[in-house]
Amino acid sequence: MNAFIAPHDPKLDLVLDREIDVPVELVWEVWTTPEHLMQWFCPKPWGVTACTIDLRPGGAFNTTMRSPEGEEFQNSGCFLDVVPLRRLVFTDALLPGFRPAPKPFMTGILTLAPIAKGTRYTAMAIHGDEDTRKKHEDMGFHHGWATALDQLVEHIKTKLG
Amino acid sequence: MNAFIAPHDPKLDLVLDREIDVPVELVWEVWTTPEHLMQWFCPKPWGVTACTIDLRPGGAFNTTMRSPEGEEFQNSGCFLDVVPLRRLVFTDALLPGFRPAPKPFMTGILTLAPIAKGTRYTAMAIHGDEDTRKKHEDMGFHHGWATALDQLVEHIKTKLG
Repeated sequence: MNAFIAPHDPKLDLVLDREIDVPVELVWEVWTTPEHLMQWFCPKPWGVTACTIDLRPGGAFNTTMRSPEGEEFQNSGCFLDVVPLRRLVFTDALLPGFRPAPKPFMTGILTLAPIAKGTRYTAMAIHGDEDTRKKHEDMGFHHGWATALDQLVEHIKTKLG
Repeated sequence: MNAFIAPHDPKLDLVLDREIDVPVELVWEVWTTPEHLMQWFCPKPWGVTACTIDLRPGGAFNTTMRSPEGEEFQNSGCFLDVVPLRRLVFTDALLPGFRPAPKPFMTGILTLAPIAKGTRYTAMAIHGDEDTRKKHEDMGFHHGWATALDQLVEHIKTKLG
């Protein structure tokens, strides 16, 4: 059953849309395997020290991020839609098993498409209101997600190439 | 792909579990068709004056409830898991299309099973913390959901029987 995904709203959403020269299959692999995701998901010198991926609707998507000073931040959420090699939707508005979360912030929508060069990679963060979108932008969405994508491509080329 | 549903937690969840003498197919029909749902979903003298059902993950589940004094309350949410005749999961923590909602309150899990008598009907409201569970209980969960179920059975027997 195909899911309904919110249409893009520039007032509420932040988008990273880029063509990258690595194949869709490997992008999917490094997004859905904890040992790979931990290597690229956070812009260095931040890092990911723990990751749980239960790849099904309602399944856990948890990460623990560590600051350069060693402080740790746990993020808990779940997947909403999983279309292998094409789309991954997850949110922090619901905990694993669809239980409402204490501090909803965003839903993430990753869309992949094969192209001659490799992959068209579209990552979108959708929010419930303009203030939350702005807060996310001020936290450094554009630089952060672009840097993580650079790390993803580098990781694929050096470890899976 | 089977979804992962949160295990029952008595501290966070409210449950209505009953055997009813109407068949699973008709229970599913009156839960998933706006013109039927509007007839039983709110304990009278409250009523439902509008309903949108887009029966797929991320699809809208919106209702407008009207108090006996004529005041209207709009509820917006979406479906998370749809297993025809067996399970329906929906939440108000996400708007249609999985966009985070302003005021998350609960996720609803309806589970149906055919039995000799008709249907075993289990409706669960799961919450993010004990305060929200208590608030829902104080709002009259047990009486309200039980009365709505009486109305559901009556509606099936008189209109679809």
